[in-house]
Parts: sequence; C-alpha cells; structure tokens
Amino acid sequence: MSLLDLAGIFPPIPTPFDQDGEVSSSALRQNLEFLNGYDLRGYVVLGSNGEFVFLDREEKVKTVEIVRDLLPSERLLIAGTGCESTRSTVRLTREAAKAGADAALVINPHYYKNRMDRASLIRHYTTVADESPIPVILYNMPASTGLELDGPTVVELAGHANIIGMKDSGGNLSKMAQILGAIHGDFQMLAGSAGFLLPALSLGAVGGVAALANIAPGLCVELHGAFLKGELQQATDLQVRIVGLNSLVTREGGVPALKASMDLLGLAGGEPRPPLLPADALLRKRLKQALLELSLLDSR
Amino acid sequence: MSLLDLAGIFPPIPTPFDQDGEVSSSALRQNLEFLNGYDLRGYVVLGSNGEFVFLDREEKVKTVEIVRDLLPSERLLIAGTGCESTRSTVRLTREAAKAGADAALVINPHYYKNRMDRASLIRHYTTVADESPIPVILYNMPASTGLELDGPTVVELAGHANIIGMKDSGGNLSKMAQILGAIHGDFQMLAGSAGFLLPALSLGAVGGVAALANIAPGLCVELHGAFLKGELQQATDLQVRIVGLNSLVTREGGVPALKASMDLLGLAGGEPRPPLLPADALLRKRLKQALLELSLLDSR
Amino acid sequence: MSLLDLAGIFPPIPTPFDQDGEVSSSALRQNLEFLNGYDLRGYVVLGSNGEFVFLDREEKVKTVEIVRDLLPSERLLIAGTGCESTRSTVRLTREAAKAGADAALVINPHYYKNRMDRASLIRHYTTVADESPIPVILYNMPASTGLELDGPTVVELAGHANIIGMKDSGGNLSKMAQILGAIHGDFQMLAGSAGFLLPALSLGAVGGVAALANIAPGLCVELHGAFLKGELQQATDLQVRIVGLNSLVTREGGVPALKASMDLLGLAGGEPRPPLLPADALLRKRLKQALLELSLLDSR
Amino acid sequence: MSLLDLAGIFPPIPTPFDQDGEVSSSALRQNLEFLNGYDLRGYVVLGSNGEFVFLDREEKVKTVEIVRDLLPSERLLIAGTGCESTRSTVRLTREAAKAGADAALVINPHYYKNRMDRASLIRHYTTVADESPIPVILYNMPASTGLELDGPTVVELAGHANIIGMKDSGGNLSKMAQILGAIHGDFQMLAGSAGFLLPALSLGAVGGVAALANIAPGLCVELHGAFLKGELQQATDLQVRIVGLNSLVTREGGVPALKASMDLLGLAGGEPRPPLLPADALLRKRLKQALLELSLLDSR
Repeated sequence: MSLLDLAGIFPPIPTPFDQDGEVSSSALRQNLEFLNGYDLRGYVVLGSNGEFVFLDREEKVKTVEIVRDLLPSERLLIAGTGCESTRSTVRLTREAAKAGADAALVINPHYYKNRMDRASLIRHYTTVADESPIPVILYNMPASTGLELDGPTVVELAGHANIIGMKDSGGNLSKMAQILGAIHGDFQMLAGSAGFLLPALSLGAVGGVAALANIAPGLCVELHGAFLKGELQQATDLQVRIVGLNSLVTREGGVPALKASMDLLGLAGGEPRPPLLPADALLRKRLKQALLELSLLDSR
Repeated sequence: MSLLDLAGIFPPIPTPFDQDGEVSSSALRQNLEFLNGYDLRGYVVLGSNGEFVFLDREEKVKTVEIVRDLLPSERLLIAGTGCESTRSTVRLTREAAKAGADAALVINPHYYKNRMDRASLIRHYTTVADESPIPVILYNMPASTGLELDGPTVVELAGHANIIGMKDSGGNLSKMAQILGAIHGDFQMLAGSAGFLLPALSLGAVGGVAALANIAPGLCVELHGAFLKGELQQATDLQVRIVGLNSLVTREGGVPALKASMDLLGLAGGEPRPPLLPADALLRKRLKQALLELSLLDSR
Repeated sequence: MSLLDLAGIFPPIPTPFDQDGEVSSSALRQNLEFLNGYDLRGYVVLGSNGEFVFLDREEKVKTVEIVRDLLPSERLLIAGTGCESTRSTVRLTREAAKAGADAALVINPHYYKNRMDRASLIRHYTTVADESPIPVILYNMPASTGLELDGPTVVELAGHANIIGMKDSGGNLSKMAQILGAIHGDFQMLAGSAGFLLPALSLGAVGGVAALANIAPGLCVELHGAFLKGELQQATDLQVRIVGLNSLVTREGGVPALKASMDLLGLAGGEPRPPLLPADALLRKRLKQALLELSLLDSR
Repeated sequence: MSLLDLAGIFPPIPTPFDQDGEVSSSALRQNLEFLNGYDLRGYVVLGSNGEFVFLDREEKVKTVEIVRDLLPSERLLIAGTGCESTRSTVRLTREAAKAGADAALVINPHYYKNRMDRASLIRHYTTVADESPIPVILYNMPASTGLELDGPTVVELAGHANIIGMKDSGGNLSKMAQILGAIHGDFQMLAGSAGFLLPALSLGAVGGVAALANIAPGLCVELHGAFLKGELQQATDLQVRIVGLNSLVTREGGVPALKASMDLLGLAGGEPRPPLLPADALLRKRLKQALLELSLLDSR
C-alpha cells in the first residue's frame, strides 16, 4: 500500500448553514467552486472550522458525501471524525470512509483531561487506527481541548501503519522539531495554522491545514511553493504579510470571523450555529481592512 | 409555580455498562437500591460522573427513563443536557423532560473557548431556559471545560425565571460568595464537590452534587445535617475527614476511581468506556485504604 | 517554647511612599494609628500588598523597624522575608527578626517554576526554618507565583518545629481541607484573603491575612467574631457583603486599588511604585461606591 | 549612532559558584576560554541561565565586570538588568553599562501579573530605555514570568530609539511573525531558545540567545550559518538533531541540567544555588547519552 501523500495546502472548510440552520449543500458547492480554482492538495471537512461539535452524526456523514461529490478527482478529502469515546470515533470514522473520505483527522478526547494520559491516548488512537478503513491523522488542538498531545505519545503512535501524520495546531515548534527528529520513516506533519506555516515547513512539515486557505488560498499555495523552490526570502515576506489576517480568522475572531470574511469575498459564509455569535461590526471592519491590505478584496 | 427545592445532597450517578459496553439497567437498579436507603434529595444523571460525553442521544434518554422508573416519588431527578450547540441542548432538554427529568443541568459550551464570552453564554442559556419545559440549573465545571462561568454572567442569568440554580464545581469560593451576595431572590447554589461542601454551605449554598455521595451518602447527608443543626464542629470534622477519599474519586482518580470504589463496596461500578482506563492496582489499593479509614468498608 | 498564637485578623499593610518615592514613616504611622483602634491580631509587613518585590533589602529592614516601633505590645508583627534564593531568604529572615519581627512569612521561590518540585521546596523551607530565629509561616500565592504549594508538601513541612502555619491565598478550599485533615498537632491556617475567610474558618483556619482589613478592619474582625460565637448566619451575611469590595482591592484592582481606597478613607495610600499604575478614575469611582455601600465612607 | 548589530548566536552563560557558593571568576574564565573559540556574536550574562534572581546587586555588577575583562574585543556583552520595579531596573542598567555591558536585556516585571497591562509595560520600558546609557533588548520569558509580552506592546516599544530588539523565549512563532510583519525599520529579533532557532530565522530573526550554545556552540553557529548560506536542508537536519539535547537543558532540566552538561564536557558547571537542586543521576545519564549522540562527548 502506498502512502497517502499529504504534501500541500488544505483548507479546513467551514460548514455553511441555510436560513433554517441546516447544512447547505448549495453553499458548499459555491465555496468549493472557488477553492477548486487553486492548486490545493485537498480539503478538510468536519474540523474545528467546520463547527464539527455542532453537527450531529447524520449531518457529518452528509457533509462528507456532499463534498465528495464536488471534489476534483486528484484531491484528497480528509474528514474530522474524533469523538470523546473510542467507540463513537470508530463508528464515525467508518461511516466517513464509506461516505468517501480519504483519511480521518482524529482530535484527541479531552473532556476528562486529567485522565488522558499517554496510555489512554495510545489505546484510543491504536483502536481507532486498527479499526479504520482509511488512514488516520492525529489532530492536536490545545486551544480548544486544553490538552497538548505530547511528543513521545506522537512518536509512539507514528509507528502504527495506519497513522500517517499529524495536524498540529498547537504552534509549539520545538515540540514539532522533536517529533520530526525522533521519527524515522514516513510521518507527515501538517501545520495546523497559516500563522506558523513557514516555520513548520522549515522543520520538515509537508504542508498545512489552514483556515486562511479558505479566503487566501493563492497566498498559502504561493508561500508553500516559494519554500519548495528555495525562494526563502519570498516565503518569509509572505509569511509575515499573511499573519495579521490569519490571526483575525483564527485566535482573535475564530469561525465567525472566517465566515464573515467569506461573505466579504462573495463566498458563502453566513452565520455560525449558536452559541457562536456572528462577527460584530468592528471585527468585520478589521477583516475588510486586512483583506484590502492583502489585495484579496478590491478597494474600488 | 412554586420553586423546585434543591436543598440537599445529590449523587451524580455513574453510568454502568454491561459486558457488551451497553448501558446496564440492572446495574443502575442495584446502585439506586443502595442510594434509596439514604436521605438524599435526588439524583443527577448524565453528569460528568455519568460519562455523558460518551453516551449518544438515545442512550441519554434511555438512562433518564430507567432512573425515573427507579426513583422514589419525593426525590428529584436532574439530567445533564448540555451540548455544544444551542439547538442540540434544547432538543435534549426537551427529550429529558419528556423522559421524566425534573430539572436540566446544563454545562456551558466550551469547545470554542475564546468565543464563549458573556454575550454568547447569555444568549445560549436564555434560549435553553426559554425553550425548556423544566427548570434549568447552570453547571460550571472548569476542570473539564477550561472555562469559568464568571460571576456577572451567572448573576444576570439568575434573573431568568426558569434558571433556578447552579452546580459550581470550580471551587472558587470567593466567586460563589460574590454571586450569592449579588443575587436577590431565589437562586439555589449547589457545591459541585464534597471537597468544599461545608465552605459552600457556610456561604449559603443549599446542598451539593457530590461524586462522593455515590459511595459515602451517609457521611455527606450527615455533614449537611450537622450544618443545618448548627453543629459546626461536627461538620468541620466530617469535612476534613472525607476530603481525602473525595480527592481520590474526583481530581486524582476521576470516574474510573469512583467506579472502582463502587466495586469495592459491592455496588455495580465496572469499567468506564474507553478512552477512560479502569483504575490501576495502586489506585485501587489507595481507594480501599481510604474506604477502610472512613469505615465504609469492613476491615474483616 | 509556647506556640505563637496566630488566631485573628492581620492586615497586610501597604508600604506608603513619600513625594520622592521613598518609604514614608509618617504615612505608616498614620495608617497604624487607624488600625490600632481595631481588635486585630497584628500586622503583616512586606507582603504582596506591601510591594515587597519593589523594596530593596535596606528598605525592608527599615520598614520592619518602623512598624515595630508603632506596634501595641500585644500585637504580632509578621514580616515577609521570602526571596528567590535560599541564602537570601535566610539572611533577610535573620535581619527581620533582629529588627523586631515576631514571625516570618515566606513565599515560595517561583522563578524556576518547573524546577520547584517537592524536594526543592522541602529543602528550601527546611533550611530557612532551621536557620530562622523566629517561627516561619508558609505563604502560598499562586496568582503571583504561578505555583501552588501542594498539600503533601505542606503536610510534610508542618512537621518542622519552627514552621507554625500557612497563609493560603490560593483559595482552593478542598486543598485546605485536605491539609487540615492530614495534620495532627499545631499548624495554624490563615485565609489569605477576605474573599474566602468564612469558608476557611469553617474548615478550621484560625484567622486571616486580608488586604481588606486595611480598609474594613471592623467588618473583618466582626465576621471572625461572629463565627467564633457560633452566629453563623451573621457571619454568612457579612461574608457575602464584603466580597465585592474585597474583589476590587485584590484580584480586580490590586495594590493600586487598595491604596486608592485608603486615600478615599483619609488614610495614607498614595501611589504605588512603578511599574504599578495608580488606580484610574473608573476604578476609584467603583471603589467609592463599594465603600459607601458598606458604610465605610460617609455619603454626605 | 549606528545600530548595535545583534546578528548571531549568544550563549546565555551560567553563573558558576565556588565551594563557598560565591561567584567564581576562575570558573567563568574557564568557560569563556572554551566559548571564545567559536564564532559567537557575544555573551549574555545575568539571564535566566545565569541565575540572575539568585544574585544580589553587587554580584551582578561584579559578574559583568569579570566577563567584560575576558571578552574578545569584537564580541558583545549583553547583561540582564530587569527587576520588578522600574527604579531598580534603571539603576541596575546604569551600573551594568558602567561595568561594561554593551546592551541591557530587560525582562518584564511579573509579580503583579494582573496589573501588568499594556500601559504599565509601556511606561516601564519607556522609562528604562529613556534612562539607559546602553541599548535595551526586550526579554519575553513566559515560562518563568507567567506573562506573555503581547505583539502590539512590542510593536509600540519597537518605536523607541533605544529599544533595539527582543529575545523571545516564548516560542509563539505566529506572534513573532506578527511582530516582524508589523515593524518597519530596525528591530532585531532573537530566538530565545535553540529549540525554535531555525523557525525564528525563517521569519527574519537575526540570531538567537540559546542555552544550548554553552555546550554546543559549534552546532548552533553551524545551523545559523547554513541558514544564511541558503543551505536549508542542512539547517533543518541540524535543527531536528539538536532539539532533544536542547529540551533537556531547558524545559526538562533547566539550569541544573545545563550545568551538569558543562561538567560532563569538562567545563565549569557545578551546582546551582539552592533552592535549585543539582541534576540527579537519571538526568545526568540522559544528558550524557544526548551529548554522545551529538558527538559532543567522546564515547571512548
């Protein structure tokens, strides 16, 4: 079996809702038509930017199916399938695979933080990877989980034949370096944010899953390309240019800001599900300004 | 409409699983028969100790129904119904009410921590309380959620006619004092752990939801009673005696330790769902020792 | 040697500075004359409210001497003498003792947080207590140190003949209960804030070191007295009444707010040393309002 | 006035103590003779690795003088001069300048964490930079201070003519990118650890202050050189190779581990001042292994 090649940029696509608050397949289509025009490696659905915690199981499976149908043949579809329990994670992973996902992005359980020691996490991920018909990608997202998948746990899990990589949204580059230095063989690291895409690439990461790639796919692809071509100064310039907007649609403003940015660009953003509140006027103004500065929005 | 009186002790009952990993109604029956022998105010199902994050919606509703059927008539049944999305919380709350819950214990959404500002939480809880056919109890559990429901938010929510109280597991007694000092009218505070039951009572809390009450219901009831009778020295003695075992079944060992303690007492504990690991031998030994010291276990 | 009796209320007195930014003995005198009129157990100098981190060694010793001279004979003088290094702590403790301190309040070293494990802290405190001519009181202040003196460490240290108690400003009442339940013999716990004074007393604490006692000594003494007399309802009422102002002069506003409150009361507060900024107009307004509500300030 | 050029690698040198626990000038000489053999930009004294919090003012000044005397003419001497109060920081900075320091590394005050808002920090650093006869370098060290110098604060301070750069030990590369993207003009960023040296360089940092450079100066210089020459793969390889040992002498083992490593290499490490405990046998064994793997120690 050849390894699924994750090298490249993946937007973690937001889940758009219609007037009734239901998942909108037409809005998904609109956004994918935009993204399909860029040289992306594929898409992540049901990630943090996809409001996966607000979707029930049926909605999750349906979302995978919709995006699968809209996917250019050479692109990868990665689906977030992590749940708090191991059995729910296994079930959803199987269903996502059946619905067309190429790989599963599995966030670590975290409600019982104090109990999620190495042994628990190793058992959880090993069971999921054993049972999954598709490759598994670890997902570290401490800003939401309050937990950091530690280096030795990741290194041990990397030895599993069906665990092929990691999306690291933590931003601890020392840890990333330790993992990449300790793993011999194929384990593909993906930066979990455009905020540290270049630093991650400099350590050997193969790409990134970046919220920013939903609204600035061209700049993300360009940065990655510049790095691959050894044009480091250009990559550096792009990195420090995009980080302000990136911060607005991640740490500072989150999903509501990302969706508002999409609206500003004529894409289908819309409102997040409650309890998330839509971006307020001040945030929208800052987003518009940042989009203008990056020439993503036309100032006319 | 008269206020639901929450004064007293509530064990947040664990969810026992059978050999196939399914919710066991017979094990629930066994545990309730034990608890029914003590002067408790009622039971909480689907709380953190009930592994609610591992149960799907159907299992949750079924658990409410099972416990409802086993409940002495004068006791209250409180069901944990909080989900990440407002709409799921509303739906589950309605279903729990239909299944027989007297009140809903609603943990705050927390995956999008940085977005859960006061306005978001106020909207969430207000919608839930508006839509709920049964009274709502706020649930603050920062050890799991990584968020602290702040004082002013609670005080504002306390003004809603259908929000009748709060289970505070955070243990910030200054905050609890501020809330109780700021609220005029009926708002019933419940200590979320036996670890600070007496301190909470000293501030005006009306009782507690305590994991420890599953294995030491008598001591918890006795402490509460001593406080009510003004026998403060006895209450103090009980408080400092129980806190060691309490720590083992909460912060130090969590649900696995609570279930292991129940096994040691001849109740139906059993294993938690993965990824939670069962208590190891060392922890079981410490639990046994602590149960012996409190004469909950016979040393013969 | 009879045990130094710490039962009662201690204001941790702020260090007032004159126009040139030097420690002002006349301002200290003015404040002590006010405090001497209340039934306090004594004073703490060089605590967090005394801006001890801004004072050099000579200033610290001088401050002890000044307050010693103003102290009624039956009152205790406790001096904060904790430094990052063990040897500096020993030296300052000896100097404070020579200058007239009755006991030393020793905050744990904390700059090298990750290294301050139990063994390091045990060695540190044991050396200090061995070398100190006066009794040592442990000082837990996690809001500033980022470290929590854990229960087993405290319990072990309590076995040292020259470690007589603890000021716990952490507010973790479960931990306080565990310590008080585990220690057999004389170890005197002091609440480190008026925010949880009654909860701490309910567990067996003997009193408190409370910033609030600088501006509301009467209320603090009254609360303590009500508790001792078994008038629990009165104590509860006082506790929930004072906690708002207490929060303003501790967590919310800190030393600048405490000093501003003293100015409002006609005492000698003045400005803190930079980098601390004086309380701004909005905070002063809130302080005035809170002082009025507690009738500490006359509304005429 | 031409800008002090910080481009390059700086070891933050440990302070060695003699048998009596006093600063040892002979040990400093031994270590500097070793370091002088590598192409380093200069040295940092009185940093976190220099145990600055354990040294009194006289010892600090003396240490600057000793190292000044041992310094090759073209190298820079940077002295840590941050204290909790603004006035102490100003005084020590002046004294360090007089003793021969070329620049001052100023950690932010942090005891009163909740008060250290932007306005306080701006005033503090502005006063220090105004009064300092030598250029000031900001020092962000959240692992010890519990505070993170935020991006906008740094950007504002970078506008001061006498604030020439920053040592960032926080490892938040997104923030570093934001700062470097926002500042126009000369502001020199230094990675505060070898753990993310290459990621920082990739963003435009000019070098690093790295504990590891005390024991592996050659590798650190080589990594920096490879980056400058555009040999990115070699830089990546070096980065992931050194990060394990780096972790041992920073986050995992700290100053005691760094000193123990120096002992293993035949340099003058010795014991840290209490309360820091010397590295234990297990840690020494891991250090030896890591030194062997990097061929810093001869396996014969």
